[in-house]
Amino acid sequence: MATTTTDVKTLIADKVAELVAAGNPSPRVGLVPTMGALHDGHGALFEQARAENDLVVASIFVNPLQFDQPEDFEHYPRTLEADLELVTRYGGDIVFAPATEHMYPGFPNAPQIRVSAGEMGRVFEGASRPGHFDGVCTVVAKLWNILMPPAPAAFRSYFGQKDAQQLAIVTRMAQDLNIEVEIRPVSLVRAPTGLALSSRNVRLDDHGMEKALGLSQALHYLADLATRGERLDISAARDIIRAQENVELDYLEIVDPTTLQPLTAQQLAMPLEREALALVAAWVPPVRLIDNMLLAP
Amino acid sequence: MATTTTDVKTLIADKVAELVAAGNPSPRVGLVPTMGALHDGHGALFEQARAENDLVVASIFVNPLQFDQPEDFEHYPRTLEADLELVTRYGGDIVFAPATEHMYPGFPNAPQIRVSAGEMGRVFEGASRPGHFDGVCTVVAKLWNILMPPAPAAFRSYFGQKDAQQLAIVTRMAQDLNIEVEIRPVSLVRAPTGLALSSRNVRLDDHGMEKALGLSQALHYLADLATRGERLDISAARDIIRAQENVELDYLEIVDPTTLQPLTAQQLAMPLEREALALVAAWVPPVRLIDNMLLAP
Repeated sequence: MATTTTDVKTLIADKVAELVAAGNPSPRVGLVPTMGALHDGHGALFEQARAENDLVVASIFVNPLQFDQPEDFEHYPRTLEADLELVTRYGGDIVFAPATEHMYPGFPNAPQIRVSAGEMGRVFEGASRPGHFDGVCTVVAKLWNILMPPAPAAFRSYFGQKDAQQLAIVTRMAQDLNIEVEIRPVSLVRAPTGLALSSRNVRLDDHGMEKALGLSQALHYLADLATRGERLDISAARDIIRAQENVELDYLEIVDPTTLQPLTAQQLAMPLEREALALVAAWVPPVRLIDNMLLAP
Repeated sequence: MATTTTDVKTLIADKVAELVAAGNPSPRVGLVPTMGALHDGHGALFEQARAENDLVVASIFVNPLQFDQPEDFEHYPRTLEADLELVTRYGGDIVFAPATEHMYPGFPNAPQIRVSAGEMGRVFEGASRPGHFDGVCTVVAKLWNILMPPAPAAFRSYFGQKDAQQLAIVTRMAQDLNIEVEIRPVSLVRAPTGLALSSRNVRLDDHGMEKALGLSQALHYLADLATRGERLDISAARDIIRAQENVELDYLEIVDPTTLQPLTAQQLAMPLEREALALVAAWVPPVRLIDNMLLAP
């Protein structure tokens, strides 16, 4: 484990040099950025990173910039020792776990210069969490800059498809700011019932679990319409969710996966021309759930 | 000359490999970012970059994001052929001159994700040009990411001290976003009279030239006070500028060079503890002039 940028850069450069010396002309380095408090949900990220790379780097950093409530940042679980064990078990090679003051010297008066997610960060999950995605972009840009391996290594960064908006935003950031990193999405995992796995699900009783199925059912309904080339009836999809007692729909929209712009009524009425993304969020007391599904033409 | 990121990366990587093969273990690569319309004022940037590096890269790109008036962007002089000749004369090795659409595919709907200069970009020159320094940060971050040479090369980027706020902001950006580039400031050049050289000076008649001297006189006055450990009397310095008929002072402030925060009355009353920066802007009809000076304790 390294806690400073200098140390972690040395660790990575040494490993890359070792791999090159061992005959690998272009070692593949995969980064799994996390805020720690690792659980089985992170397993899929590490599994894919391990399978696709020669070197797996994990970052563990609770990023104050992405919390809109300071209390949430303070109370966020910090379980470094257990996290390190899990990273090892998941096959991670190097862990970067810097202190807040190391990432943001002078915090909260720093960083002065930040990355802004723009309109993509103000919609959907961003609407209720002002600044959240700006904070995500800023820390991810920093982590990429710190952990990007030297040539001739290739650099990939892993993000769960479960947080589809975050995935779309960091993908766009790499393009818009010309950052040499390949974004690798990791599919979300569903229970046999269809429910997207989430650490929040443990707070649902059997009744809640059942109500929560409306989200994935609505998404599957839209995916089927898309496959069949039929009109994407968002109202009907919303009704599937609203049919559940006590479930409060926050949003269900179909958007362009690269811009998060909602499809127009005209686009919804015609067979899809390219992949679209259905995003949903709803309160299923006592938790708020999100889910999403790519709709293929 | 290269117009695409792929081509310019190849040019730089090849040159770095050549230098390494020729026995240079860590070639130094210096970038001079410009908007073209090169004139003798750019000479000092190239001269220093040439003296300090093994490879000198110039970028020529009129960045639409940093113009707050679209007409100014449209009417900005584009003199690529003459610029290329000048870069060669100044000793530049590689020129990167991309088209707007190559830097910002989908412009003006892109880039979605941008860099924000925050408060440092909203004061002084930024106060009258909203978004200007965000645009500067965004394009400079992109250029750095595109033109950063592969290991084992070292990367430097050159900025004139004349635009002190821009220099402070990009320096801060490299720190805040962990970008591996060394910022090299290039001293501003003064006429024997003290007037800071600027392409705008040609629009001043003899009378204007004389009035303009108030700016550098006020700065020298403050620098002398600082050296002598005396109270920094900003009011007296402002009066030096205002004493000239028709000259309209915009601002004269003494700030921390790394944060651009004005020094407090208490700090101004005591001998300086560390370097400070005096910034001034004034209308000397028909032009607006800026100048600055580092104040040493």
